[in-house]
Amino acid sequence: MKYSFKNDYAEGAHPQILEALIKTNLNQQNGYGLDDFSSEAKEIIKQKIGNPNATVDFVSGGTQANLIAISAFLRPHESVVSASTGHIFTNESGAIEATGHKVHSVETSNGKISPEDIQKIIDVHQNKPHQLKQKLVYISNSTELGTIYSKQELVNLYRYCQENNLYLFVDGARLGHALTAETNDLKLEDFGKYTDAFYLGGTKNGALIGEAIIINNENLQEEFGFHLKQKGALLAKGRLLGIQFQELLREDLYFDLAKHANQQAMKIKEAFKDFGYNFFSETFTNQIFPILPNTQIEKLSQNFDFYVWKKIDDENSAVRIITSWSTPDEIVEKFINEIKKLQ
Amino acid sequence: MKYSFKNDYAEGAHPQILEALIKTNLNQQNGYGLDDFSSEAKEIIKQKIGNPNATVDFVSGGTQANLIAISAFLRPHESVVSASTGHIFTNESGAIEATGHKVHSVETSNGKISPEDIQKIIDVHQNKPHQLKQKLVYISNSTELGTIYSKQELVNLYRYCQENNLYLFVDGARLGHALTAETNDLKLEDFGKYTDAFYLGGTKNGALIGEAIIINNENLQEEFGFHLKQKGALLAKGRLLGIQFQELLREDLYFDLAKHANQQAMKIKEAFKDFGYNFFSETFTNQIFPILPNTQIEKLSQNFDFYVWKKIDDENSAVRIITSWSTPDEIVEKFINEIKKLQ
Amino acid sequence: MKYSFKNDYAEGAHPQILEALIKTNLNQQNGYGLDDFSSEAKEIIKQKIGNPNATVDFVSGGTQANLIAISAFLRPHESVVSASTGHIFTNESGAIEATGHKVHSVETSNGKISPEDIQKIIDVHQNKPHQLKQKLVYISNSTELGTIYSKQELVNLYRYCQENNLYLFVDGARLGHALTAETNDLKLEDFGKYTDAFYLGGTKNGALIGEAIIINNENLQEEFGFHLKQKGALLAKGRLLGIQFQELLREDLYFDLAKHANQQAMKIKEAFKDFGYNFFSETFTNQIFPILPNTQIEKLSQNFDFYVWKKIDDENSAVRIITSWSTPDEIVEKFINEIKKLQ
Amino acid sequence: MKYSFKNDYAEGAHPQILEALIKTNLNQQNGYGLDDFSSEAKEIIKQKIGNPNATVDFVSGGTQANLIAISAFLRPHESVVSASTGHIFTNESGAIEATGHKVHSVETSNGKISPEDIQKIIDVHQNKPHQLKQKLVYISNSTELGTIYSKQELVNLYRYCQENNLYLFVDGARLGHALTAETNDLKLEDFGKYTDAFYLGGTKNGALIGEAIIINNENLQEEFGFHLKQKGALLAKGRLLGIQFQELLREDLYFDLAKHANQQAMKIKEAFKDFGYNFFSETFTNQIFPILPNTQIEKLSQNFDFYVWKKIDDENSAVRIITSWSTPDEIVEKFINEIKKLQ
Repeated sequence: MKYSFKNDYAEGAHPQILEALIKTNLNQQNGYGLDDFSSEAKEIIKQKIGNPNATVDFVSGGTQANLIAISAFLRPHESVVSASTGHIFTNESGAIEATGHKVHSVETSNGKISPEDIQKIIDVHQNKPHQLKQKLVYISNSTELGTIYSKQELVNLYRYCQENNLYLFVDGARLGHALTAETNDLKLEDFGKYTDAFYLGGTKNGALIGEAIIINNENLQEEFGFHLKQKGALLAKGRLLGIQFQELLREDLYFDLAKHANQQAMKIKEAFKDFGYNFFSETFTNQIFPILPNTQIEKLSQNFDFYVWKKIDDENSAVRIITSWSTPDEIVEKFINEIKKLQ
Repeated sequence: MKYSFKNDYAEGAHPQILEALIKTNLNQQNGYGLDDFSSEAKEIIKQKIGNPNATVDFVSGGTQANLIAISAFLRPHESVVSASTGHIFTNESGAIEATGHKVHSVETSNGKISPEDIQKIIDVHQNKPHQLKQKLVYISNSTELGTIYSKQELVNLYRYCQENNLYLFVDGARLGHALTAETNDLKLEDFGKYTDAFYLGGTKNGALIGEAIIINNENLQEEFGFHLKQKGALLAKGRLLGIQFQELLREDLYFDLAKHANQQAMKIKEAFKDFGYNFFSETFTNQIFPILPNTQIEKLSQNFDFYVWKKIDDENSAVRIITSWSTPDEIVEKFINEIKKLQ
Repeated sequence: MKYSFKNDYAEGAHPQILEALIKTNLNQQNGYGLDDFSSEAKEIIKQKIGNPNATVDFVSGGTQANLIAISAFLRPHESVVSASTGHIFTNESGAIEATGHKVHSVETSNGKISPEDIQKIIDVHQNKPHQLKQKLVYISNSTELGTIYSKQELVNLYRYCQENNLYLFVDGARLGHALTAETNDLKLEDFGKYTDAFYLGGTKNGALIGEAIIINNENLQEEFGFHLKQKGALLAKGRLLGIQFQELLREDLYFDLAKHANQQAMKIKEAFKDFGYNFFSETFTNQIFPILPNTQIEKLSQNFDFYVWKKIDDENSAVRIITSWSTPDEIVEKFINEIKKLQ
Repeated sequence: MKYSFKNDYAEGAHPQILEALIKTNLNQQNGYGLDDFSSEAKEIIKQKIGNPNATVDFVSGGTQANLIAISAFLRPHESVVSASTGHIFTNESGAIEATGHKVHSVETSNGKISPEDIQKIIDVHQNKPHQLKQKLVYISNSTELGTIYSKQELVNLYRYCQENNLYLFVDGARLGHALTAETNDLKLEDFGKYTDAFYLGGTKNGALIGEAIIINNENLQEEFGFHLKQKGALLAKGRLLGIQFQELLREDLYFDLAKHANQQAMKIKEAFKDFGYNFFSETFTNQIFPILPNTQIEKLSQNFDFYVWKKIDDENSAVRIITSWSTPDEIVEKFINEIKKLQ
């Protein structure tokens, strides 16, 4: 059977998480997020992000986190600015629009947006009330192209948002991978400080399911529970989410898993580099986008699964290789070996 | 620590489910419900309901199942009829209305609705298009009051719906408990035959999370996946749902667990009955509603947790006792003992 | 041809309005409510309601006024309380729910709701966030049954709303008729003082179209224009609304027209009373609901149109007779004459 | 006072319309579009578009027409394709998204979209159900840039839509101007034949308010009245819309008025051309976009109002001049004279 590099959610959960589920299984708890595990996990997170006044809520997945947060934060006439590669713009089947809000898109070369990009959208929407009021900036870190924001970039974005009465919301489905990239200079605390809200992804970093929505801006915290319930996100057995985040964040498991994924990707990246391949996007996280001749893609596909990401020209395409917390060393070696054999 | 009879989702999952999660953990699978476990679980369900043309999709919880199914089935001007005790009418924080659809309520004595109840709603909405078009009838089985529908009642409702161009949708959060009640004469196959769609609840019957939405009416099946995605219900690790339903339904675990819950409730019910207590609602499932003097409620509360359901008069109230797949015999005995001591 | 007492919008507009349209026709104006006529009409209204800090916006009709105001005022998890006879609950094809908000209904005998009615709804929605947060109370004056609120009743409702963090919104489609009823003790200024917002109806009182939405609560005023635009209510030729409200309110035309309608209704009511008929609802506005034997209804229907409102028993029904600003004296006399002939 | 070329809705209505309102004023009619005038106007329109099976409904304005038609036609997971200059994409304050539907935009040079443009959007949305299903193509004729579609272009678009299971919907706010442009080869009948639905604009062509929504596709006609009511568009005095469309379309008034507007614009265009000015968009309808030095714009602005449309470079900008059914010859002459004086 082929090994799949198609995504970072192909396996179940890190064994430590499953053990915790077993250990706590018959412990009776309150439902709907009012269990002890969730309470403790929330405290851990607030401490780790350095913001005791934040609120933390757990939901099942990324699209759910995005749609609930954004629709809870905005009034009906307020809109969102996103990169055109943003998950909410192109990969969530109109989930944000289904809650009534337009998403304006910005073209970027690397999946990251800047204050200048946002300003351009604002500039062409000055004819109020015929044109919408932009109110929330959505970024992903790491981005859908595997790139990451620097501390300066995040701080600049946040300041710009503050000055322009905008919220900054970060999709952190792969925040662990961003924070453990070798080129990263951001810390988890920075997200407790330089964002209005963000979510910390579990699904793509060793959990069975689960994302933690963290709201720093106190004006946005009020009555958030209603939105969770109304959108069907309040699990009766909220313990399932609390237990997982406890395990991931009590010590450094969350970061260790992400770092492992990054390292496996970087090994593969180096191998491609050594043989002179170019990349569609320069990344230091668990996604790499090497450009290969289509004939070589076919050969590599015989033993490994991955997505062909984008046609570059008639003879070459970029592929996407994703590694995960569970990608074994021997698989990486075997794959590198096959790259060698292409030469 | 007090034992809780407050709900049937206070514990984790049946051990067999946890074992299955461990056993399959590193098996790589496609995401978003396209994994082998989900495929197999879907086949099992279609076979068990006797409808090979049904579609099956797994979601995380009951509110999610209700809101996605109902909003996918209806056009903007179509509305829902529900008992006033119906979960969607009163306990889901306006989730259905948030998707744009009105829920008309019908007063009932026992949580069950009849063709006559629906007809009354239709009769007072004849001034089209100023008044809404009723299109979907929502019932729960077992109901929020623990009662169940007989086969004749379900068949009558379905026929009425067919004749009146209405869909019949059944909230089966506790369908297992209904089907294993001693007074029940319905089979799972009947729900594959006499409903347009229904869901089979896992969360309240031994799963960590998970409800299976089953659509019998082929006109309603089309493109249902978009709705799952748009509402944030498509789990990246859909395997988590597939594995659980495989375990629950491959053999009879699902029914064994529900039967156990019912039996524990019935033992307690008998004890109350033996001492001459009355009940707010006559039930044969895992919820019972005995009426007690407030002083006795206070005493029972010292060692056990349960909800005070409804004030009956200044001195008496109905309480709700819920048992689950995991309620131990010794707890039931201890509780019955305390009832005795009240005398 | 039969004369119709079916509604108060069967004719066009009061001649003075048509003359004003002609006189101003070629005067160039800014679009979308920024015309001089609208500005002046807004000033007149703010002066007449005694609230210089109110905002005024004109829309085309009552359902539009209700849905825009309510959806602009509420966050997604907030709901509305209305009488079950309320126009938004039963006669607007789910317009409020289509914007995402539930409407809770209260049964009343006369179409009016009291603080006690609201409190009952709040009392059974204490399980937050599973149950919705009630935030807005919707009343109509005159009501859909032709009844009116006294000053004490309005003040009590407003105080209750203030104390319970609720908004009070008044549907004034027939506010003119309420304010000119012989039993009325409210003034227009009271609505500038004892409501968060209300609308003043033009369509049913001599305008071609048009309702004026008045927002007293300054927290609700912000960015209201976006909601008007987003819901398709901002007319390019907003002048059409401004000109009409100028004519209606510059002097006392608005009240004169409503008073005329009321008086014609009262003459007919007296006639029915003189012959000993009972009424379904005791009213002093332009709607009356006499109860007649079905055989007499049939006879009266030969020369006059009106709605049979409600079956009382097998032989008697209540009918609804509505008069308008344009109902002529001779028609009223002729109708009274036919009532006489029934004896 | 300055004459305004800012828009084509600065004045009231054509005098013939006002006369008709006066003449019919006291004629009692049914409400909510069931009046005789509306019925007759609908018949006239069905005849003029050559489609006896079409349905016709009147609403107050263009944004309302767009949002009701589009939200009635689509299911929740279906989206719209529009030019990025399309009124719904940029000038309706997110009205379409507020009904839950995404609008994909296509960059164009002239405001018109082609099958190739649509195909590109479809091509990058193949990952169902993560990516939306495109279902409706929205075009405007004349476009927001004053350009028009040729018959071949409309037929090609319609065929493409038919083959790809898409609806073609035409925003005809200025359809009269398109159909009377000197370069036009389309007839009104073509819109009864080569579209699924379109609307015929009254507001910008001599009516006080009013747009006629025409649905050719019989699958889209069903129960459309509910959507009109639910969105607040069903006027109690629907006669106001019926009377106006009767006047506009009984004879050729609608086309005469549009032709007049076009001719006045073309005279001004010729004047600019004679003096060697370029244009931002080559148009033959009532909107022209000459490019002028900013200093000349300032001079022209002393006696005339118009919008500065777009900065071309530091010293030049495109302005928008719009003429209407009521633009007098002497004003056009005076304006041309001022252009001369700029030289």
